Amino acid sequence: MFKTMSILSQGGTIVERLEDEMGQVQSIFASQLASDLPPVNRLCGHIENYRGKMLRPTLALLAGLSATRTAKGSEADTATALEALADNWPLTHAHRVIAAVCEMVHMATLVHDDVLDEAALRRRGSTVNYLQGNEAAVLLGDYLISNAFHLCSTLGRPEINRRIGEVTNTLCAGELLQLHHRRNWSLDQRTYFAIIERKTASLIGVCCELGARESTDDEDVVLALSRYGSRLGMAFQIQDDVLDLVGSEEVVGKTLGQDLDKGKLTLPLILYLEQAEAPKRAALLELLSAQPSDDRSGSIQRMLQESDAVTAAHRVARRLTEEARAELANVPDGPLTSLLNEVAEAVVSRER
Amino acid sequence: MFKTMSILSQGGTIVERLEDEMGQVQSIFASQLASDLPPVNRLCGHIENYRGKMLRPTLALLAGLSATRTAKGSEADTATALEALADNWPLTHAHRVIAAVCEMVHMATLVHDDVLDEAALRRRGSTVNYLQGNEAAVLLGDYLISNAFHLCSTLGRPEINRRIGEVTNTLCAGELLQLHHRRNWSLDQRTYFAIIERKTASLIGVCCELGARESTDDEDVVLALSRYGSRLGMAFQIQDDVLDLVGSEEVVGKTLGQDLDKGKLTLPLILYLEQAEAPKRAALLELLSAQPSDDRSGSIQRMLQESDAVTAAHRVARRLTEEARAELANVPDGPLTSLLNEVAEAVVSRER
Repeated sequence: MFKTMSILSQGGTIVERLEDEMGQVQSIFASQLASDLPPVNRLCGHIENYRGKMLRPTLALLAGLSATRTAKGSEADTATALEALADNWPLTHAHRVIAAVCEMVHMATLVHDDVLDEAALRRRGSTVNYLQGNEAAVLLGDYLISNAFHLCSTLGRPEINRRIGEVTNTLCAGELLQLHHRRNWSLDQRTYFAIIERKTASLIGVCCELGARESTDDEDVVLALSRYGSRLGMAFQIQDDVLDLVGSEEVVGKTLGQDLDKGKLTLPLILYLEQAEAPKRAALLELLSAQPSDDRSGSIQRMLQESDAVTAAHRVARRLTEEARAELANVPDGPLTSLLNEVAEAVVSRER
Repeated sequence: MFKTMSILSQGGTIVERLEDEMGQVQSIFASQLASDLPPVNRLCGHIENYRGKMLRPTLALLAGLSATRTAKGSEADTATALEALADNWPLTHAHRVIAAVCEMVHMATLVHDDVLDEAALRRRGSTVNYLQGNEAAVLLGDYLISNAFHLCSTLGRPEINRRIGEVTNTLCAGELLQLHHRRNWSLDQRTYFAIIERKTASLIGVCCELGARESTDDEDVVLALSRYGSRLGMAFQIQDDVLDLVGSEEVVGKTLGQDLDKGKLTLPLILYLEQAEAPKRAALLELLSAQPSDDRSGSIQRMLQESDAVTAAHRVARRLTEEARAELANVPDGPLTSLLNEVAEAVVSRER
């Protein structure tokens, strides 16, 4: 639970209270999904396996804290400001519901991605119970989306429902755009960024936006935190895409090379194709068009590692992270911006 | 468009205005889905193929009309009351949005059912573009669910969002319960009714409930129309299940026998297994457990037709329809209850 806390070095009271808040977020999450039907509850139990860094709820809560003006104001040092915050804790039920809703939407996308992953397994021949698993995954994802919206509506705040709906529309459109561009080996950076902005950055941005808006009516602060989340989301996705290509499966803890198998061109490959000389470019294109195999993945990985493409992709992710952190300058009194700075750093340097 | 109008014999002004209303519902539906991304719009174009009887939006609008008290009151004859209604037309933007939202939720379930249908086709060997189609269907269904909630939230009425969310939760749970009971040859009537009440009747019930609530604050009338929709929804699903087993593919216009192929036990089979003598019961169970084939489907169809099971299932559907119609007695001043009566009759006697 609350694994990102390990990268938050402030220690002490705030972190403990955040851990308690995350426990409450998880209770809201679990109560929402509880059904009178045992098979539904058993299926929901599976999504425990999907739970990862809890980045989205963490950001919703941290944005809620950072947007809070403490009585001490910006002139106080961080320790004093944190103390003031602890004395006058600003996080509410609405913050926790927003955090749970964002995580539930995220889980739904993972579960439906799992449908695609099972499809990949099928291509490699593992078809045992493929159909049964596929159907259950589709329905479980639907159940999660539906519950996310229902949970959101329990706040009785139509503007929050509307924002979440806008973002899930954007997210689905981004996934559809990505699907449309499968096996498009001339995918350009502009389209790649349009895809990841929609499918990943939009949700991470709205976590920060809604978390912040619960704590302040200063729209400049809200929008700064929204942009922070959005930029960070872009960097997060680039890092995800880099790891899928050149990460270590043991460290990352999931099957890698899936983007290649699915014909999804990501930033390192786009940069390689843009920059390589003609023969190398042709060699990579030939490998990309070939049937998926471990040999093919290994060859592509070696080509990338012998080039500057991965470093260049990292550079883009780092620049986006810097842009995210720069937004924190617009959150003048937020004593927790140092924690948001650390989250940003962790996102871009993570190896899993 | 508005195909059920063909079964509404009142004719004249009200029907013309309803057709105009349905045109507006379809405009709201289409505008909501419109994207700045051409591939998304192209994919949404496919759902035109899914459009059928438009039962749900029709019921939302008819419930809105029926719940309206006309100045003439219940003592007036139907023609006079209809005239009064035409002079003081009660349907609003909210009615039309509710109608579009319910249809969009329904389309999402059809698109995700299509994932399962493609799986069936795959089992019969048609695997061309199966994977691509499967993934697009999952994402398109998600896009529809998301847009249904977003469209709903544009009303700025949290209680409507909440009801829709409750119903989609119920609907997903019903689908999951159904999946859980696949190839359960001892499925009983109680569980079958629990499944269809959740997966079908809940949405049809809420169409009527929300449509009515926009027109009246008399909760007795709202709840009567909600129960009308719910009972009708049960009858509708039973008729659907009967047609899947013994309908004519040419008349129904879609692949039949899918429930058998998916191991879904429906009311005629449940009644057969309950009532048949031991040898016939054993013969049916053996056929049910066998590999899907046209021979198997034909044999099961013949066994059903030689028995009383289909007639008995029809009897249950008709009883539910009578229960639905009985609720209309609680809608005293509704001049359009005769149209709702006709819809009820059409649902249970339909052959497609």
